[in-house]
Amino acid sequence: MIIVFKPEASEQDIEHLVDRLRSLGLRSQISRGEERIVVGVIGDERVLQGQPLSVFPGVESVTPILAPWKMVSREFQKQDSVIDIGGVQVGGNRVVVMAGPCAVEKLEITVGIAQSVARSGARILRGGAYKPRTSPYSFQGLGQEGLEFLTAARKETGLPVVSEILDARDLGYFLEHADVIQIGARNMQNFELLKEVGSYDKPVLLKRGLSATIKEFLLSAEYIMSRGNQNVMLCERGIRTFESHYRNTLDLTAIPALQELTHLPVIVDPSHATGKWNLVAPMAKAAVAAGADGLLIEVHSDPECALCDGEESLKPSRFHDLMLDLQKVARAVGRDM
Amino acid sequence: MIIVFKPEASEQDIEHLVDRLRSLGLRSQISRGEERIVVGVIGDERVLQGQPLSVFPGVESVTPILAPWKMVSREFQKQDSVIDIGGVQVGGNRVVVMAGPCAVEKLEITVGIAQSVARSGARILRGGAYKPRTSPYSFQGLGQEGLEFLTAARKETGLPVVSEILDARDLGYFLEHADVIQIGARNMQNFELLKEVGSYDKPVLLKRGLSATIKEFLLSAEYIMSRGNQNVMLCERGIRTFESHYRNTLDLTAIPALQELTHLPVIVDPSHATGKWNLVAPMAKAAVAAGADGLLIEVHSDPECALCDGEESLKPSRFHDLMLDLQKVARAVGRDM
Amino acid sequence: MIIVFKPEASEQDIEHLVDRLRSLGLRSQISRGEERIVVGVIGDERVLQGQPLSVFPGVESVTPILAPWKMVSREFQKQDSVIDIGGVQVGGNRVVVMAGPCAVEKLEITVGIAQSVARSGARILRGGAYKPRTSPYSFQGLGQEGLEFLTAARKETGLPVVSEILDARDLGYFLEHADVIQIGARNMQNFELLKEVGSYDKPVLLKRGLSATIKEFLLSAEYIMSRGNQNVMLCERGIRTFESHYRNTLDLTAIPALQELTHLPVIVDPSHATGKWNLVAPMAKAAVAAGADGLLIEVHSDPECALCDGEESLKPSRFHDLMLDLQKVARAVGRDM
Amino acid sequence: MIIVFKPEASEQDIEHLVDRLRSLGLRSQISRGEERIVVGVIGDERVLQGQPLSVFPGVESVTPILAPWKMVSREFQKQDSVIDIGGVQVGGNRVVVMAGPCAVEKLEITVGIAQSVARSGARILRGGAYKPRTSPYSFQGLGQEGLEFLTAARKETGLPVVSEILDARDLGYFLEHADVIQIGARNMQNFELLKEVGSYDKPVLLKRGLSATIKEFLLSAEYIMSRGNQNVMLCERGIRTFESHYRNTLDLTAIPALQELTHLPVIVDPSHATGKWNLVAPMAKAAVAAGADGLLIEVHSDPECALCDGEESLKPSRFHDLMLDLQKVARAVGRDM
Repeated sequence: MIIVFKPEASEQDIEHLVDRLRSLGLRSQISRGEERIVVGVIGDERVLQGQPLSVFPGVESVTPILAPWKMVSREFQKQDSVIDIGGVQVGGNRVVVMAGPCAVEKLEITVGIAQSVARSGARILRGGAYKPRTSPYSFQGLGQEGLEFLTAARKETGLPVVSEILDARDLGYFLEHADVIQIGARNMQNFELLKEVGSYDKPVLLKRGLSATIKEFLLSAEYIMSRGNQNVMLCERGIRTFESHYRNTLDLTAIPALQELTHLPVIVDPSHATGKWNLVAPMAKAAVAAGADGLLIEVHSDPECALCDGEESLKPSRFHDLMLDLQKVARAVGRDM
Repeated sequence: MIIVFKPEASEQDIEHLVDRLRSLGLRSQISRGEERIVVGVIGDERVLQGQPLSVFPGVESVTPILAPWKMVSREFQKQDSVIDIGGVQVGGNRVVVMAGPCAVEKLEITVGIAQSVARSGARILRGGAYKPRTSPYSFQGLGQEGLEFLTAARKETGLPVVSEILDARDLGYFLEHADVIQIGARNMQNFELLKEVGSYDKPVLLKRGLSATIKEFLLSAEYIMSRGNQNVMLCERGIRTFESHYRNTLDLTAIPALQELTHLPVIVDPSHATGKWNLVAPMAKAAVAAGADGLLIEVHSDPECALCDGEESLKPSRFHDLMLDLQKVARAVGRDM
Repeated sequence: MIIVFKPEASEQDIEHLVDRLRSLGLRSQISRGEERIVVGVIGDERVLQGQPLSVFPGVESVTPILAPWKMVSREFQKQDSVIDIGGVQVGGNRVVVMAGPCAVEKLEITVGIAQSVARSGARILRGGAYKPRTSPYSFQGLGQEGLEFLTAARKETGLPVVSEILDARDLGYFLEHADVIQIGARNMQNFELLKEVGSYDKPVLLKRGLSATIKEFLLSAEYIMSRGNQNVMLCERGIRTFESHYRNTLDLTAIPALQELTHLPVIVDPSHATGKWNLVAPMAKAAVAAGADGLLIEVHSDPECALCDGEESLKPSRFHDLMLDLQKVARAVGRDM
Repeated sequence: MIIVFKPEASEQDIEHLVDRLRSLGLRSQISRGEERIVVGVIGDERVLQGQPLSVFPGVESVTPILAPWKMVSREFQKQDSVIDIGGVQVGGNRVVVMAGPCAVEKLEITVGIAQSVARSGARILRGGAYKPRTSPYSFQGLGQEGLEFLTAARKETGLPVVSEILDARDLGYFLEHADVIQIGARNMQNFELLKEVGSYDKPVLLKRGLSATIKEFLLSAEYIMSRGNQNVMLCERGIRTFESHYRNTLDLTAIPALQELTHLPVIVDPSHATGKWNLVAPMAKAAVAAGADGLLIEVHSDPECALCDGEESLKPSRFHDLMLDLQKVARAVGRDM
């Protein structure tokens, strides 16, 4: 931690702060420059997290030196984490595609889509049983029945299942049916839910909040890991900006930036990010070219009648073509698919 | 709903859409302009919510005519809602100040701050027992013990208590101790929690999400009201923008904009919005001048040692001076305080 | 400047940087903490502006200690700047209202509006002769003729005139006709124009760019002041955010934040910020309550027929009522009007 | 244009608006739905641009049906525009890389970098002679001398030159030396400059403003084209968002979105977008995978000593490796390079 004092700060102000640091077990190094006095904190600055040093008299600014996270960081673990999901490895050289309907609607439709995406090369089935909808008057998902349909689709296809959880109270049933627990963008800072899923070892797909910084994103992953669950995947799915021509702005720069900071795999969801099916393919290719470890793509056999997010769903034939294109891009950047 | 077709759309495309509308019980009015064909939907367009009309062949754009909410709207209820909180009316002519510490820490400190803010004219005590913290390594709140301290402070001062809930599983205990349930910014779209608090009639203070639009904010309030709870207050607390000189950007334009759209009271939290104690007073005055029905202000007797958000907490003497200033501003805009 | 090294940085990396600093005339203080080595730069860190220290091998982060501006800062000049505009003082205790049409259209309309706003208490006349319009097919302003109409209105009313300049080539004619040169939001970083107006002593009203940070805003003012023109007023006029229910988000927190950092007067334009006439009055009152030194308000005698921004223009009678209300708010916060 | 009336609007309100439309030469179609009365405008709605219909009594909302631009649109010209720059075609199947230093500094360095990027496969040389710098105390570019160095580099390498112009008064000299006029992000809405470059036929590289919407971006291109210059290239270079871990957020979704709306080529600048050299390569690959027609990349032989943006400059050897990788990605998406 570096603390800069205002030019008008008194010696007493500096002593007052140094005393406080000492009482917290930290030492100080005072540096008197030409225009400012600067105090460097020596010791574990993490004990200062949440300490309001900026309100101390005379303080102009406070700058941390260390990142506020630990277990998620590359410094803590040099090599990439590889997460095993029912035999499918995420985080290795192979780019993994997770595909399926936004919401689970009917048994046959779910199984049909699962079979179709499996044939095209998807390795994991996605599907929502609990749906967080902006309006209370929109379809809210089938709940437990939806999970059962997904289980049936897994039985038919062998694809492990990723599905979103909204409420810690559903976790028991959920753990029996899903292979990956998805924490949606709206729940990225639902800390009670993070703590809860952190106490199991079931893989977690953590989506970045709509306006979450890279820092907040990693701290939410740290919530899960610090409770013991090391199987965390990060998912960029578009952030909120001023641009309204597409639903969100897909932040692909987050891929290499995260890969520098953390050892966790980075997945990209071009479907929710763009909100328009015809933008999904170019963004999926871009994500792979930028180094994504996986993709989450919505596929529906009848988008016109989908109960949720039909606008962004690919028809199976379009998904099939996209998978062929993605293999070429993956190969071009030295990855398998 | 107004559906515009692309210039290259065929008659078949138009028929296909009109058929779909008919199957949903809606009629269509087709208008052939010089450059575009436009279909107007006649009937209750709310049945179209979530229908992906934009994926229908030939469709260029889809524009709703009606707001997606109902119970929160001025159209539904012309007169202002006035919420009664243990005898304190929020939403009437009187501007109500809710003040107290960010986090409840110790019994004596809590009671002391409560007595102090009561003397200065605050009508409701705020204090956090469950704290949503960005980092897992920050103080997470006292939980049930915190609620008990707040209850003790209420007994001493007569001030009703507003406190934040993070987890529906805590609601039982919570309802016995708090007079207002606060839903924090991070939980504005925790729809399961909204549904849950919607099933009681305990007043709810719903904070706007960090990047929530006015529309999403009102739809979250609609979640609560549509479950039966009519006692909802909206709270603007700063939105996330590119500006990082202050924690968030306080969006005061939301006050008159919301008051045009909804009958619910609008509260402003200048403390969390700015994140700096010296910006709280001017923003509190601005909020009252813009027409806010209430304020939520953090006060701490020893900000340097506060376990949470000491940076933005006012000392009791500064809060006292601010209350005197706020009374003048309230009077200048025709409000009591 | 504080330079933090990565844990894996070598002694050679540190020497390499220290050498570079030395060659720039700066000394270094090396501090070896438990987890990081930190180098503090001693000397005038402004010589480091634009130096890409972060690309030096082993460097993890670079944090400046001093603000990058000089003449605009409170540190450089403690007391508030007061700008004289034809006898009207901006920056003193009196809140100054500048009002008039968005665009100058016809002589009689311009004079009529000027007389009306003068009667209501406005002290400066605003009006656009050169209009920066998003679309090339929108009305682009009357140019020189518009400036002549403004001059005629000044003759009739005695109100000094503020008008926007778009092109340095118009400056000669402009200086003869306008009392204040307005630099619009879109030109806040048109540095050639800033340098040009900086070489006169005509007062400048510098509007904040749509997505300009406080830091960039002050550096643009520094461009003007560093060329010799000390008569700069800053104008907050709304920033671009994700919220689209109003045109921009008026950032009133910028008022006290700027007043802490700089001695220059701060003006607020609630008309362009909101883009809706019915939101102008509450935001104008809020701006005064937050400490604004002046307001810029659009008034038009026939908004339905205005050639520019009729949506946000107040009718003269509404402006008159607003001025009465503003006087009360100004008095409540200890200001004259 | 679709105009929706409030439920409380009177017949007189509707007549008043219809009269106004008639006086502008437009016909109206009135549709009386169950909850709202809607007026559709028949005729060329472009005459309504800038008309403040929303202030007419009783009006609830106004929605345009047509895009506000004309010449830039796909509807106006179906096939892709291909711009010829001294024999290099931009907008065809071949992805064109423009590379060089951020700022031109010295003759030998400029020529050396030009030779190096030419060898690696760049087809156009970029280099700044006039530099728009946030701070007045940063290096402002060499001006005319810089243009001469670029001309010398062109003579040595045969590479056409793209350079930024800041001031219309420099245009004469500029036209003699540069092959492409770059309009920087800060000048995207410097409409006088757009009009000026629109009156020549020299190719223009128009960069997207930091917070410009797709709509504003296209309207700025329309400014240039409506003056006669058809040789416009669009350049995405990152937008401003809340995320500050990288300089800007590169909005790659703009590539397919623009290609749907316009026939103009789309270039991407990953260097300015990210501001960090180690993020440039993944983002360059992602841009090509997403369908970009070209790239603008900063290369410097000695980034540590670069006078501008050394942080984001690639060393020649890294640029060389990147070009090899880009060729693979281009081929994977069916493009040449």
